[in-house]
Amino acid sequence: MITELLETYNAQFFVQYASSRDANFFYSTGFKVHDPVLYVLGSDGTDLLVVPDMEKGRAERESRVREIAGLGDIGYYENLRYYKDPRTALAQTYLELLLSHGARKILVPTNFPSFLSFYLIKQLEVEVVENPFSKMRAVKRRDEIEKIKEVAEIAIKAFEHGLNFIKARKKCEVVRSEIETYLYSKKYLAEDTIVSSGKLSADPHHIGMGEIEKHVVMDIFPKSRVHGYHADFTRTVLLEDFKEIEEMLEACIEAKNRAIKTVRDGVFASEVHQTVCDILEDHGYHTLRHKAGEGFIHSTGHGIGLEVHELPRIFESGEKLKAGMVFTIEPGLYYRKWGGVRVEDTVVVKKNGCEVLTPYPDKVDLR
Amino acid sequence: MITELLETYNAQFFVQYASSRDANFFYSTGFKVHDPVLYVLGSDGTDLLVVPDMEKGRAERESRVREIAGLGDIGYYENLRYYKDPRTALAQTYLELLLSHGARKILVPTNFPSFLSFYLIKQLEVEVVENPFSKMRAVKRRDEIEKIKEVAEIAIKAFEHGLNFIKARKKCEVVRSEIETYLYSKKYLAEDTIVSSGKLSADPHHIGMGEIEKHVVMDIFPKSRVHGYHADFTRTVLLEDFKEIEEMLEACIEAKNRAIKTVRDGVFASEVHQTVCDILEDHGYHTLRHKAGEGFIHSTGHGIGLEVHELPRIFESGEKLKAGMVFTIEPGLYYRKWGGVRVEDTVVVKKNGCEVLTPYPDKVDLR
Repeated sequence: MITELLETYNAQFFVQYASSRDANFFYSTGFKVHDPVLYVLGSDGTDLLVVPDMEKGRAERESRVREIAGLGDIGYYENLRYYKDPRTALAQTYLELLLSHGARKILVPTNFPSFLSFYLIKQLEVEVVENPFSKMRAVKRRDEIEKIKEVAEIAIKAFEHGLNFIKARKKCEVVRSEIETYLYSKKYLAEDTIVSSGKLSADPHHIGMGEIEKHVVMDIFPKSRVHGYHADFTRTVLLEDFKEIEEMLEACIEAKNRAIKTVRDGVFASEVHQTVCDILEDHGYHTLRHKAGEGFIHSTGHGIGLEVHELPRIFESGEKLKAGMVFTIEPGLYYRKWGGVRVEDTVVVKKNGCEVLTPYPDKVDLR
Repeated sequence: MITELLETYNAQFFVQYASSRDANFFYSTGFKVHDPVLYVLGSDGTDLLVVPDMEKGRAERESRVREIAGLGDIGYYENLRYYKDPRTALAQTYLELLLSHGARKILVPTNFPSFLSFYLIKQLEVEVVENPFSKMRAVKRRDEIEKIKEVAEIAIKAFEHGLNFIKARKKCEVVRSEIETYLYSKKYLAEDTIVSSGKLSADPHHIGMGEIEKHVVMDIFPKSRVHGYHADFTRTVLLEDFKEIEEMLEACIEAKNRAIKTVRDGVFASEVHQTVCDILEDHGYHTLRHKAGEGFIHSTGHGIGLEVHELPRIFESGEKLKAGMVFTIEPGLYYRKWGGVRVEDTVVVKKNGCEVLTPYPDKVDLR
């Protein structure tokens, strides 16, 4: 895929400069590193990771990359002494490396830092492309699906763990802390877990605080601390009668389940999104199709894997769904007067349908 | 400081495009957000954050920024319909925003994504500068120092917690897990905590695995999950006689304490580093000054705050130390034949010296 991309653009190298916090870097190198390093893939077969000298041994053992070079090996320290400034020395060292490998034109991903692209462009043609690994990552291998499934299962267990504290009418902060500590002890990391109640829940990204009122939205998206994959799961829990919230929830459940039925290999993501909008509008709610500030004010879903948000987008601009893609379907409705509701599953696309990785009753009624 | 910078470069705006994972963005906006957003500071007093519509309410409540705009307010959805591609639509929307504010030249930080700088440069002059907030962040306010001190105290408690499991001769993985779970339960997050023993410890970034042998290096750098600040603390624990390791450790302890004595307002960081190198070389060990692959193969230290590694660098190229700077001093020696040792304190620069935020005995001898 990289070779084809390089051919299409008539370029010799695809160059990433990133740490393992960048999912595309981690996916392509298998190397965990805190500070950014250079990773070069070439049409001539180059597969080269340039790391600080002290990381060479670890990179040789732990990364999947064929060739490892230390900064010292390629003249960084000489350049540092000459240019004084570490960033200029680094850019110059990388430029010399690329030129010595015969680079005339390179491709870089969208998030490639401007200090480097502006330096390299003095002697090379530099073109920005969508990181091809983003697209590759959207379609999961079998082992990746198994990892996400494992995380989906623990997300549901964490939800049930949280339910105990909701029944005891603990505050949102306490429920969140209990969920996150439970997950951490099992080797998962959950940050900004949403446990949101009352009118605050009208803000879909508010993590929630204070007393649990008549309903509560719990949105849990842990990451495995072992392999780095995520899952994403949301249910809205009813604790007391609340007509408007119940009706909103019914509409979202119907929208989610009808949307899930549309998913299969070859369908456009936009179809899934439009299904959700159609149903919510049929129920009399607003959606983004009519630019409302309230109602269904976000997309239907997002791919999930090494990142919480990755390709595909399940929104207006349609990408074609492929077997192996894993994403969320999460209709929600948000009105300042009442608060918000959301139901969310993580699904994997199959040839003739999809599998829900977070099977759990849609209605969680504690009344 | 931004105003002066803009004047120096004869530019109208400093533009960041980042999420709160970028410490400079979080420091300058006070806003926690998962996906990147645009933050514009202008010589005309502009202080503007552009967020997805659904984040507007939260940005208005939680950020320190004066003016909040939703993408919908500035024509993103019209551009999306016209350009189809979300990234092009975004870049075009930002370009129109900047032009409508009278931009002719903008400054962007080094990590500004190339997809945006390459798009904006078609109609604007774009110059890459070191993010001025990096430099500002290096000198801590009193409240920041208090936060780091709080984390330093918990790091020491976590070290002592870990010692119990080392005494019980648990495996490195178990000790690490106990330390990290202890910290998590106290509202701190520690990742890649180093508990490294035997020859593996010759690799300074290896997190360690397997049995505890004759000595163990424990390097703990937790982040507060409440306010996001870090501290960094390392001690090498002796469990059995090991002449070479003991001698290496003695040299590092001497180097650390002599280096600490050199620190005060106005001293060059390189002086601190050279002090460490001098002492280690006096003891007969190799340092990077002579390009050795073994010995003291990293810098003396790094600033610490919202990031584990930030300014100032305590290395060859000297920055002048200023009162309020917080950084580590961490001499280490690494030989494949024997393994590695390191001792590390976090210190804050004072007018006439420095304060050690991690006061703890240098020798931890369990023999």
